[in-house]
Amino acid sequence: MAKHYASSRNAKFLVHEVHDLAALTKHPYFAHHDRESFDMMIDAAFQLADTHLFPYFADMDRNEPELKDGVVKVHPQVKNIIRALAEGGWINATVPLAEGGMQLPESINALGQFIFQAANNSAMPFTGLTAGAANLIRTFGSDYLKQTYMERMYAGEWQGTMALTEPQAGSSLSDIVTTAEPVAEGVFKIKGQKIFISAGDLDALDNVVHLLLARIKGAPAGTKGISLFVVPKKRVVEGKLVDNDVLPAGIYHKMGQKATPAMHLMLGENDNCFGYLVGEPNKGLSYMFQMMNEARILVGITAAAIASAAYHASLEYAKERPQGRRLNEKNPLNPPTLIINHPDVRRLLLFQKSVVEGSLSLLLETAKYADLAHVSQGEEQANHLLMLELLTPVAKTYPAEAGIASVSAGLQCLGGYGFCKDFPLEQLYRDIRITAIYEGTTAIQSLDLLGRKLTMHNGKAGRLYIQAVSETIGEAAVYDALKKYAAALEHELKNLQKVTAHLMEIAQKGDAELFLADATLYMELFSLNAIAWQWLKQGTAAHKALLAGAINQEETAFYESKLQAMKYFFHYELPKTQGLTTRLTDSEVITIAQQKELLV
Amino acid sequence: MAKHYASSRNAKFLVHEVHDLAALTKHPYFAHHDRESFDMMIDAAFQLADTHLFPYFADMDRNEPELKDGVVKVHPQVKNIIRALAEGGWINATVPLAEGGMQLPESINALGQFIFQAANNSAMPFTGLTAGAANLIRTFGSDYLKQTYMERMYAGEWQGTMALTEPQAGSSLSDIVTTAEPVAEGVFKIKGQKIFISAGDLDALDNVVHLLLARIKGAPAGTKGISLFVVPKKRVVEGKLVDNDVLPAGIYHKMGQKATPAMHLMLGENDNCFGYLVGEPNKGLSYMFQMMNEARILVGITAAAIASAAYHASLEYAKERPQGRRLNEKNPLNPPTLIINHPDVRRLLLFQKSVVEGSLSLLLETAKYADLAHVSQGEEQANHLLMLELLTPVAKTYPAEAGIASVSAGLQCLGGYGFCKDFPLEQLYRDIRITAIYEGTTAIQSLDLLGRKLTMHNGKAGRLYIQAVSETIGEAAVYDALKKYAAALEHELKNLQKVTAHLMEIAQKGDAELFLADATLYMELFSLNAIAWQWLKQGTAAHKALLAGAINQEETAFYESKLQAMKYFFHYELPKTQGLTTRLTDSEVITIAQQKELLV
Repeated sequence: MAKHYASSRNAKFLVHEVHDLAALTKHPYFAHHDRESFDMMIDAAFQLADTHLFPYFADMDRNEPELKDGVVKVHPQVKNIIRALAEGGWINATVPLAEGGMQLPESINALGQFIFQAANNSAMPFTGLTAGAANLIRTFGSDYLKQTYMERMYAGEWQGTMALTEPQAGSSLSDIVTTAEPVAEGVFKIKGQKIFISAGDLDALDNVVHLLLARIKGAPAGTKGISLFVVPKKRVVEGKLVDNDVLPAGIYHKMGQKATPAMHLMLGENDNCFGYLVGEPNKGLSYMFQMMNEARILVGITAAAIASAAYHASLEYAKERPQGRRLNEKNPLNPPTLIINHPDVRRLLLFQKSVVEGSLSLLLETAKYADLAHVSQGEEQANHLLMLELLTPVAKTYPAEAGIASVSAGLQCLGGYGFCKDFPLEQLYRDIRITAIYEGTTAIQSLDLLGRKLTMHNGKAGRLYIQAVSETIGEAAVYDALKKYAAALEHELKNLQKVTAHLMEIAQKGDAELFLADATLYMELFSLNAIAWQWLKQGTAAHKALLAGAINQEETAFYESKLQAMKYFFHYELPKTQGLTTRLTDSEVITIAQQKELLV
Repeated sequence: MAKHYASSRNAKFLVHEVHDLAALTKHPYFAHHDRESFDMMIDAAFQLADTHLFPYFADMDRNEPELKDGVVKVHPQVKNIIRALAEGGWINATVPLAEGGMQLPESINALGQFIFQAANNSAMPFTGLTAGAANLIRTFGSDYLKQTYMERMYAGEWQGTMALTEPQAGSSLSDIVTTAEPVAEGVFKIKGQKIFISAGDLDALDNVVHLLLARIKGAPAGTKGISLFVVPKKRVVEGKLVDNDVLPAGIYHKMGQKATPAMHLMLGENDNCFGYLVGEPNKGLSYMFQMMNEARILVGITAAAIASAAYHASLEYAKERPQGRRLNEKNPLNPPTLIINHPDVRRLLLFQKSVVEGSLSLLLETAKYADLAHVSQGEEQANHLLMLELLTPVAKTYPAEAGIASVSAGLQCLGGYGFCKDFPLEQLYRDIRITAIYEGTTAIQSLDLLGRKLTMHNGKAGRLYIQAVSETIGEAAVYDALKKYAAALEHELKNLQKVTAHLMEIAQKGDAELFLADATLYMELFSLNAIAWQWLKQGTAAHKALLAGAINQEETAFYESKLQAMKYFFHYELPKTQGLTTRLTDSEVITIAQQKELLV
């Protein structure tokens, strides 16, 4: 088995040397934290992960949840994991001190979640969903809902879920048909079906609280008639838990992330399911979308974390496994070399490192904008929020898409063993695949990036991005060793602007379908730029540390390894923008459906 | 469940309209076949697959083989499948009539295997391995071995295997240590371990015949001291089967292709394991390599077939599943559109079609060179063999690598359902991953292509390739509608030559490691060229059929769909050569290990 799943040294490098997150603690809101307390949080997260998560990674996959006699039996360790995360303060980590949380920056919380996910991603949706659902009640719910449901959720006593998807609607939320009929002030009878509800039921906790989208009878059609409800598995009546007619109708058997059950739920089959309105009627979708940034960043974190576990497992293997001889070795009778010395294995490892550490850096950058927005005001705040909105779909999608390829590269390093259950690679390969689907598929994120984030406010988010990347280029260009890479990114940034301008011209002609037909390719182009930006940042920090000198061998290796990964990214990954640019500026229409159905 | 796994119309298009395989029947060796008999073989293959393979696809994955009390229990359908394939003549299809086979061209046999693999890849290694092992005995074995073992194998009564890999050696066959001690003329006592032996044991048949590599005591070290043996599970002594001390020590639990057990075998633990030398001592590896082309093409076929099953399943889904609205739809209350009308779904489908049908076309082209070599002589034959050798690693690797991405695209079309066991996509996604590892990993195929195939005979294979592709370009350029694509491929062909020349310059300086460091990227560049070649061939055939006119609507859709897939490949896939070219002509060394270990 692998011994490592993530690098503590890298976590601290990103927090302190690249993103200087301790600077957040200069703001009163975060002033109760400091550099040392951040380090302690990271250390504590690793300790929790080592104890409660990592040792159960394979076993929870082998023994997946079962639905039997109406009860969803999950792995016995689920209860311990939820308890440990609740006790560590990780379910309500970002909640204000006054409300019982740690008032922790989103960025540090994201890093903690990264460590947990890397150790055992399959078990992490339980608390992740509880936190997301409880945050929705906290932001939009009544005091009654907060006291009755939210507090038990933050305490890890009750499970939370997001109940959006329905069989006929899929990603198209405007088509949901679950109904809500008013029976008292703020109380509704709910009837409908929800599918793919992660952690939608479990025997490990006493109750499950669904944050559920439904239509109040008579509400307008489409997205403007959707409301948000708290629909518990058991409702609280006079201090007691009463069955609320939420039936686990089926459990999905998935390829990966097996520890968490994905449920098909029937609501109100016996006309006895009550839901409690959250906020105002018909605003459900807008409430949900306010939580979406958080959820999407968390999926990006999941993907980067799974890729991290794969990278460390395959790196360990490559450093221990002798096989074959180097190509310039003249004597075939000399002992075999370690496979890390084969260029193609090293390429697969550098690819993984560049994806994992580039992704994590972008995710922390994105979460940091959420933190900065929290402690700023006016135009400054607006700008931080715009950057957060712009980067979120990228920070969700690149880790997922490149992460899938990265785990595959890790599996390849192990050859036939990578395909077998004796090593964690095959499980990680199955687990990570869902991240390109969860919380909006890659196509949906790409439409969001190009069709919404880059067009809103007259393209202001794009201009802020250029400014931020240009700053990094300026800082790197000071150093001779980095000039070449600063220039390369500058060139790429201009190319990205050129492609964007070309697409905006099409947009202005009003053909949305044509404008957005290749949005997914644009996402890839933008992502390569954003990750190169993060690598230039990391390279600059590493170069400065090496210049400062007087560090031990291990530290030197850490920084030189960073520079090597930066170079890998610029020389192997970044050139992929060339083919993408060719396609994105090519006028031949290929994927837009015509009258006739041509695909057979 | 999906209703289709491969297209019969496409099979016949490739056989007749693109590769004109019936022309082979002008040669006396294949004169007992004709166009109609080829069509009948294809129809028979589909019928066999529909009856015996496709219905058991999921069930054989869910009920994987078990090793219990020394017995490897496989799915009960295994026996029926082997029998059906043997009765259909598919185990010894290419064997001469005089020796009991059908004397079928390799290309038509490959197409039959493609159909079977698409229906149920997981169950196909049994007969595939038996055929490969029996072919080895047929080519190099004594009459005794042929009569005693080979005939039972071709009849589907006994299983065959290839027993190469050992725990300490992996892909490095020069390091194998299994020993063979002479006890009589051609008879040896065998002692050692073999791992990852597919179909290495099973309860469905009475015997298993391993074609096994071992070292005769006192043989030279390295690759020149390896011999090939027949090592049966039960040896034939005076007409009776006697236990031969081949112990199933363990079964590997794999991510996919679960119907076929991968075994860990212990040989001669009780000093009672006998092996029979095949051919001459110390020539085992060269014998094995003569069969390697066949095995590699079969892995390419497997990969293309799995991608075909995924393409047809996701195409069906996309044509039936309504969700969301087209982006230019102004009224959100209109009914949802089918997802095939979303450009990104259509892009994912066109990508799959281009991979599946491009791969299959290249595989048939490659197998056709084997057939042509069979019926030609002298320089003509030498040229055909060179093309076969050149194309084999490409025809193995592109279907595997692009096929993995292609199945992933199919899964993505289904969203959350793609990740669930209710649909075949998740299983296909797990199954196909092994194809980049089986029979030499992608890295090994790439070293073979660049380091061996393109350098041997002073680069003659490369010149033959240019000639073949140029012919296709010439035939396409006749038609106005295809001129643009002919010119694009011509440009790409020149670029490929330029990059190859650049790498050969490095090779001539004698640094093999530097020359081959990015061989895998070169493989990708070469593959894109080869698949574009196949698409231009297919596009030309389709264009000619449309020009000829007077065909029904369904046929028109078939050909227009072909042209659309060709265009997709040229506009979306081929531009990827740009980034690859940049890297392959870039002098920065990134992946070659230095003295210090830098990767952390």
